[in-house]
Amino acid sequence: MKKGDATRTAILDRGVELATQIGLEGLTIGRLASDLRLSKSGLFAHFRSKEALQIQVLDAAAERFVDEVVRPAVRHPRGEPRMAALFENWLAWTKTNSEPGGCLFVAAAAELDDRPGAVRDRLVELQKGWLDTVAIIFRTGVAERHFREDVEPDQFAHDLYAVMLGFHHASRLLRDPRAEDRAHAAFERLLSAARRLGARRESG
Amino acid sequence: MKKGDATRTAILDRGVELATQIGLEGLTIGRLASDLRLSKSGLFAHFRSKEALQIQVLDAAAERFVDEVVRPAVRHPRGEPRMAALFENWLAWTKTNSEPGGCLFVAAAAELDDRPGAVRDRLVELQKGWLDTVAIIFRTGVAERHFREDVEPDQFAHDLYAVMLGFHHASRLLRDPRAEDRAHAAFERLLSAARRLGARRESG
Repeated sequence: MKKGDATRTAILDRGVELATQIGLEGLTIGRLASDLRLSKSGLFAHFRSKEALQIQVLDAAAERFVDEVVRPAVRHPRGEPRMAALFENWLAWTKTNSEPGGCLFVAAAAELDDRPGAVRDRLVELQKGWLDTVAIIFRTGVAERHFREDVEPDQFAHDLYAVMLGFHHASRLLRDPRAEDRAHAAFERLLSAARRLGARRESG
Repeated sequence: MKKGDATRTAILDRGVELATQIGLEGLTIGRLASDLRLSKSGLFAHFRSKEALQIQVLDAAAERFVDEVVRPAVRHPRGEPRMAALFENWLAWTKTNSEPGGCLFVAAAAELDDRPGAVRDRLVELQKGWLDTVAIIFRTGVAERHFREDVEPDQFAHDLYAVMLGFHHASRLLRDPRAEDRAHAAFERLLSAARRLGARRESG
């Protein structure tokens, strides 16, 4: 890693944290510069525009997500074990990366859904990519004969996303002490409906 | 209805629309006054504080929600038909009341989840009341022997809420043309898991 890369990584790392706290829309070059005690002009040389900064912060958060959620999951056997690991990692991500502002992606979705532009476009791209990843992992479960062939992988991905949005809402807004149990129950119901009759159920 | 009540209703009505557009946090007495071409001091006499205005706007939106979603649903037979009507009305609400800012309650949840205070407290109260309403309607379905006794009504309510959050996300952020189909499929899966074996299925 070159010095410039390391600096950029450190800056983006702090950008992700700050965006989680104050929202992506609040993340300006000036705000990040003052937080990092760097000169605004120096930071401007790195990023050129607020939009470019926000897009790179989204990308950095997505890379973290892949490292913490996706990579450890694909080390599990294909099919249901891999999907279960993906779900647990995602839940852990949503819990640990959600203070104080909530999962950056969920918060950004609410901020940006009615604000056309390059930042929104990148968020949509990342979210669609994530749904595609879930659908692909579901397909490995069909190939392994864990999941039914007549369940549409994209619908499963959509439904799993909804489970996580429900968890985010119950834990963040309602402070429901059973939020995590409810998420597990919802995921189990989703899996039950997707399992092939006679497929091995995971114990535990 | 007295003249003062009518005025207040008209003001709050516009307040709900404006909050849907610009977010609840953006809704100040000054902003609403200039929008309505009323004097700020006159409006201040009605509401006293930004917080009080925001709370009354939430209450007015909740009243609308009851009128458009809950009341027409409870005219349907108890049990599954009533739950299905509730779902359809809720979906229609989310579609028609979501331009341009998204469903006021979903948007407010994202805005307020990390902002302690009276406005957040009222939002939580309203949301819990709504989840309780869903759970009560689910229980009528157990009494009618449409739904299983071993499905927890609060879990069903939580899961139905998650279906609607998934719809909101898919339609508002992803602009998924299949968002409504996906919501219907998710609801059908939720119902299937809740139905008693041998219970009559609704056709259509």
